[in-house]
Amino acid sequence: MKGNIVVGQSGGPTAVINSSLAGVVSYARKIGVEKIYGMHHGIEGFLKDDLVDMGEYIRNDEDIELLKRTPSAFLGSCRYKLPKIEGNEEVYDKIFEILEKHNIEVLFYIGGNDSMDTVKMLSDYAAMKGKKQRFMGVPKTIDNDLPITDHCPGYASAAKYIATSMKEVIRDNESFGVEKPTILICEIMGRHAGWLTAAAALSRGEDCSGPDMIYVPERTFDMDDFLARVKKLAAEKHSVVIAVSEGIKVADGRFVCELGGGADYVDAFGHKQLSGCAVTLANKVAAETGLKTRAIEFSTLQRAATHIASLTDINEAFACGYLAAQAADEGRTGEMIVIDVKNRDPYQVGYSIHDIHDIADVERPLPAEWITEDGTDINDGYVKYALPLIQGELQPIFVNGTPHHMVLKENRG
Amino acid sequence: MKGNIVVGQSGGPTAVINSSLAGVVSYARKIGVEKIYGMHHGIEGFLKDDLVDMGEYIRNDEDIELLKRTPSAFLGSCRYKLPKIEGNEEVYDKIFEILEKHNIEVLFYIGGNDSMDTVKMLSDYAAMKGKKQRFMGVPKTIDNDLPITDHCPGYASAAKYIATSMKEVIRDNESFGVEKPTILICEIMGRHAGWLTAAAALSRGEDCSGPDMIYVPERTFDMDDFLARVKKLAAEKHSVVIAVSEGIKVADGRFVCELGGGADYVDAFGHKQLSGCAVTLANKVAAETGLKTRAIEFSTLQRAATHIASLTDINEAFACGYLAAQAADEGRTGEMIVIDVKNRDPYQVGYSIHDIHDIADVERPLPAEWITEDGTDINDGYVKYALPLIQGELQPIFVNGTPHHMVLKENRG
Repeated sequence: MKGNIVVGQSGGPTAVINSSLAGVVSYARKIGVEKIYGMHHGIEGFLKDDLVDMGEYIRNDEDIELLKRTPSAFLGSCRYKLPKIEGNEEVYDKIFEILEKHNIEVLFYIGGNDSMDTVKMLSDYAAMKGKKQRFMGVPKTIDNDLPITDHCPGYASAAKYIATSMKEVIRDNESFGVEKPTILICEIMGRHAGWLTAAAALSRGEDCSGPDMIYVPERTFDMDDFLARVKKLAAEKHSVVIAVSEGIKVADGRFVCELGGGADYVDAFGHKQLSGCAVTLANKVAAETGLKTRAIEFSTLQRAATHIASLTDINEAFACGYLAAQAADEGRTGEMIVIDVKNRDPYQVGYSIHDIHDIADVERPLPAEWITEDGTDINDGYVKYALPLIQGELQPIFVNGTPHHMVLKENRG
Repeated sequence: MKGNIVVGQSGGPTAVINSSLAGVVSYARKIGVEKIYGMHHGIEGFLKDDLVDMGEYIRNDEDIELLKRTPSAFLGSCRYKLPKIEGNEEVYDKIFEILEKHNIEVLFYIGGNDSMDTVKMLSDYAAMKGKKQRFMGVPKTIDNDLPITDHCPGYASAAKYIATSMKEVIRDNESFGVEKPTILICEIMGRHAGWLTAAAALSRGEDCSGPDMIYVPERTFDMDDFLARVKKLAAEKHSVVIAVSEGIKVADGRFVCELGGGADYVDAFGHKQLSGCAVTLANKVAAETGLKTRAIEFSTLQRAATHIASLTDINEAFACGYLAAQAADEGRTGEMIVIDVKNRDPYQVGYSIHDIHDIADVERPLPAEWITEDGTDINDGYVKYALPLIQGELQPIFVNGTPHHMVLKENRG
């Protein structure tokens, strides 16, 4: 590679998206790339020529270690979707103009489905116009819904946070309620797929029986059946804990959160933004049964908790970035790094590279065989899949009692 | 001490309430107490003679280490308030009957204001009736509102969790919103006192500017002024983060959460249970300004997150339990262990013992001089007070990727 590179981060942040950035930067530093640029707020910032010089932040291995321990998108993220090429060539020409201005040979984009679409469009446009720049995708999403790859960097850390927090709040909920049971409903992210909510099952072990029920959006939610099950559980035990995905829907297609009058709105990608499913259910249970209820939404905590990130995830996220840079250095373009799990126990991981056209805009649901027949739990098949991914920790660097982070100068104000 | 002992845990759990239990048990083991009983669900369980034999769980130093790393009340907690002695002597006689049945010489109660009231009533009754049993209080409350003691075990770990999580969600919120600012409102526990919410200020440092505003219940909340400030901040920056206490009230005395139609109910101690203050404010901001908002409630996560507990807090909680047992061994009764801070920088801590009558049912508010004049922030006086308390960590014992806990046999089902 003779030219410079630029790296962007896009979509919802994860606990390890900066480890992938660290991976790209590490390889580029190794081969002596002159200028390693970052996009400030993804392709949206890039279109305004808003670039960060990574050389100002990464001067040595210690800086790499701090970047790995930094939550959310260090460079800032965006939810900007490139328009289709036809009729919008000026947007693409603008991007290539900025690439050429900075002598950028490779553009790396770290993200999920929508971000891989950006990589696809740019590499298609380059091929169409005979441009020499190359484009590489680095997988990232807590939703774990990218196809081809065994799992996505970012997922395992969110899963580890969910499993850890479930254990803690289950224990908290068990402390009370000798006479009157308490029904705790925990809401976990996931609009369409139950990957994250399934992680509640990872709280099960010798020291924790885990949630009593787990509901994912892959199955239709039946309110009457749910209420009957809660009543039965409440008659049997003093603490009942239920994990629900934000995206669960009733038979007529409405989200559960819409039943309680919860607000919903649509983001730039046309995804419905949801909230309040656990609150809706907690209010419903309280109204119908008189039982004491509590709702907890793990909210953005579950994607930002780098302080308890999975070391396996951090290392894999780093490897995906590093290998994307290596592949680009070897002349590849229009592809994404893929994680291949060769064996789950003992865990053996490998990496390959795959055409972006098979990945962009394809969503992978939670396999049906991991959901119990009655649709109220997640079985051991999932646990075998996910358990190796949440292993290991990377101790934060504590300063004044809290984990220290690397921060853009713009955000220090 | 020739007889046996019993330990109870009461009120809202904390991340370190089990460290205090570990402290009592450690001293009792050292002096060879024959039977160390635990109350299953506090005095409520004790009244039913529902006891746990701690000897089944604590056999060596490793068990003590696991107990210290276990969140929530290992023995189970309760919110049972003893009735006044007059006219309710049968309740007290029942307690002394059970104490005598098991040859229990000292009763330890780990808890906050209401629990110290239990210690007071029992020691008063013993004095009145010439009973030989002794009663010792061990401070515990995330609310930090016990008088006399510099701070309360449990508070610092909640504060460390709040500061850490604030840093993470602030970073997450900053990742978006180049064009449209996002207003993030974080709700922190605290019905009457702003101690916990103040901990949001501990997120400030070289790498984080912290929340833009902090609202505590010690000051009246002015909705118009709040909305004007949010609008001004949103015009200046793309990420606005506000920390609010669940207990903030408007001038007519209503809780903010009541303004949005949020549910409220009263617990066994007559405290109002609140929720939804952040959601109420987020909806209000969205409706009045059209800005994008998000609400996060730290909920019980903030009192259960032993995985990021403060080592200072763990050690002090242990010391309070240990020294209570030592004091009882020396014949003391009707008292509570108190933390005395001799110097804050460098931090030097000591312990003393104080008459329970000065402590029970007395609440200590956040000092007025730590709240900024306009009532929208917490100043450096508080930070100097709290920063030494959140120092240090105790690495969890990870099993299968999540922190391992000690668990009562009853809860393993």
